[in-house]
Amino acid sequence: MGIDEIILLEHGSGGKASQRLLEKVFLPYFREVPLLDAATLSLGKQNLAFTTDSFVVDPIFFPGGDIGSLAVHGTVNDLSMVGAKPVYLSAAFILEEGLPMEDLKRVVESMALAAEKAGVKIVCGDTKVVPRGKGDKVFINTCGLGLIPEGLTLSPQNITPGDKVLVSGPIADHGLTILASRENLGLEGLKSDSQALNHVVEALISRFSTQIKAMRDPTRGGLASVLHEFSEAAKVGIFLEEESIPIRPQVKAGCEILGLDPLYLACEGRFVVVCPGDIVSDVRDFLKQFPESEEAEIIGEVVAEPKGVFLKTVFGGTRPVPPLSGEPLPRIC
Amino acid sequence: MGIDEIILLEHGSGGKASQRLLEKVFLPYFREVPLLDAATLSLGKQNLAFTTDSFVVDPIFFPGGDIGSLAVHGTVNDLSMVGAKPVYLSAAFILEEGLPMEDLKRVVESMALAAEKAGVKIVCGDTKVVPRGKGDKVFINTCGLGLIPEGLTLSPQNITPGDKVLVSGPIADHGLTILASRENLGLEGLKSDSQALNHVVEALISRFSTQIKAMRDPTRGGLASVLHEFSEAAKVGIFLEEESIPIRPQVKAGCEILGLDPLYLACEGRFVVVCPGDIVSDVRDFLKQFPESEEAEIIGEVVAEPKGVFLKTVFGGTRPVPPLSGEPLPRIC
Repeated sequence: MGIDEIILLEHGSGGKASQRLLEKVFLPYFREVPLLDAATLSLGKQNLAFTTDSFVVDPIFFPGGDIGSLAVHGTVNDLSMVGAKPVYLSAAFILEEGLPMEDLKRVVESMALAAEKAGVKIVCGDTKVVPRGKGDKVFINTCGLGLIPEGLTLSPQNITPGDKVLVSGPIADHGLTILASRENLGLEGLKSDSQALNHVVEALISRFSTQIKAMRDPTRGGLASVLHEFSEAAKVGIFLEEESIPIRPQVKAGCEILGLDPLYLACEGRFVVVCPGDIVSDVRDFLKQFPESEEAEIIGEVVAEPKGVFLKTVFGGTRPVPPLSGEPLPRIC
Repeated sequence: MGIDEIILLEHGSGGKASQRLLEKVFLPYFREVPLLDAATLSLGKQNLAFTTDSFVVDPIFFPGGDIGSLAVHGTVNDLSMVGAKPVYLSAAFILEEGLPMEDLKRVVESMALAAEKAGVKIVCGDTKVVPRGKGDKVFINTCGLGLIPEGLTLSPQNITPGDKVLVSGPIADHGLTILASRENLGLEGLKSDSQALNHVVEALISRFSTQIKAMRDPTRGGLASVLHEFSEAAKVGIFLEEESIPIRPQVKAGCEILGLDPLYLACEGRFVVVCPGDIVSDVRDFLKQFPESEEAEIIGEVVAEPKGVFLKTVFGGTRPVPPLSGEPLPRIC
């Protein structure tokens, strides 16, 4: 059976198959569900952001984090990316029968610590248990609620030719770390970038306000997928400078060994920013003051034509960066 | 290994083991998580209710509903039980590789219909896919946001001797239907009571306001577990009249055959109300006007002593109704 008849792993990739599932199955019924990571709503007297994310990462413990801290960071960051200040989280657990209690405690403790560091409160929860072989250790859903400052208009549709693109730090750390950890690949020096971005994002917006045109965290589908989303929303072209894109040497080497393109690998603590060209150096210098984004770089520019995403390689050529298809790395979040 | 070293199915029962898990593992870290089904919060200028629930029901389709409609009803009802008007829902799916797309479409369509009937909007979503044998067809998490009317003070701690207890309709339909459906028991005439209660609850509160002391939907752990929670919170005794408790004949017969006590079986469209004795007939007559609660009955009374939950049997005796321990029916929601 084909991709339209049965659920395949690639339906969870964040790439073309995910998009197709959304369009064919969910959007016809859930017309209010936005393509963004968080919905912006009004409830009574308050404008707020509301987001949901389930975490099924395998393994549940990995260098740089675990499923608990990841669940907090992922949801906090989804709120931050629409400009909201994260305030409250929910935490719902689906546990597999036989999970050692010590593992659960370690995950819960890690969630609590991550929430405290991010300055958010976990205010409601739920626990279900499924029989052995009907789940996988622990799955966590976190929903987030955040406050939206008045007058904020972040949207990829604001992007225009002449804008510049920044990334807040090295890409692909999280995706490659999870893969190497799951498959015991023996790659050295890898560590997830999983972290909460709300403090640096709040500072950025407070400083530059509506000059920031769009932000997004490159999780499933990686940097390439975020830039494709921006390119399609704004009907523009985005040209990346390969040599400007920050990638740790061990990540680059690991990707070369495995034949993976780091442009498609997930980060869980980085964000992409688009702003006008005349302030991009100020934005970069501002970001570099914060530990979360001290390795921020300007990585590309926005043009009117040709549309799409392109990479100017270190060898002087230019190649298109196609949209992600298939599932390169399942269960990285 | 014992109940404190490893996760067992009974940790998901809603009974003593669940309570122990909450106290030993979650509450030390998540101090803000209430024992109620929904948290009541203030966000900016608005008081609101926020709740999360994951649904892992097996089978995913059953007489009277499916995992999609159940996920909407369960979350809407959790908001209603704290007196909130449900407004927004999230919908997060964990799909098992190999799930037929038609099954997913049927679930999504059912969710959308249930949300429309309840008058709530599904505003954000997420989809993850896990490999075969690492999940079970589909799990759904729904979070809910609701508006809290000013001045409402629902709480089991309001309950005092002389109060009366009502239930909005026949108990145990959902729990027994799921069990019979999963195990192909061939019991006739069973149908889940899964339904949204927000419309009738809003009308009830609008009519009786703060005279309604406490409400709760008897889901996991059934009627007995809700009454134990009330008894402990208010430090009172609750005496039930066995002959007044509405139970359909086929449910009663099924429970007798299987040796199950309907007092511990889940409903997903019923609620328990506690109010002063002098208005209880008015409350019952008011509830009977609504299709969701047309079979409402007065089932018991609150006394100062002895504390605990007791059943006056049809034979004239009185027996204690102990708290639930163990897991009678896993995965009913």
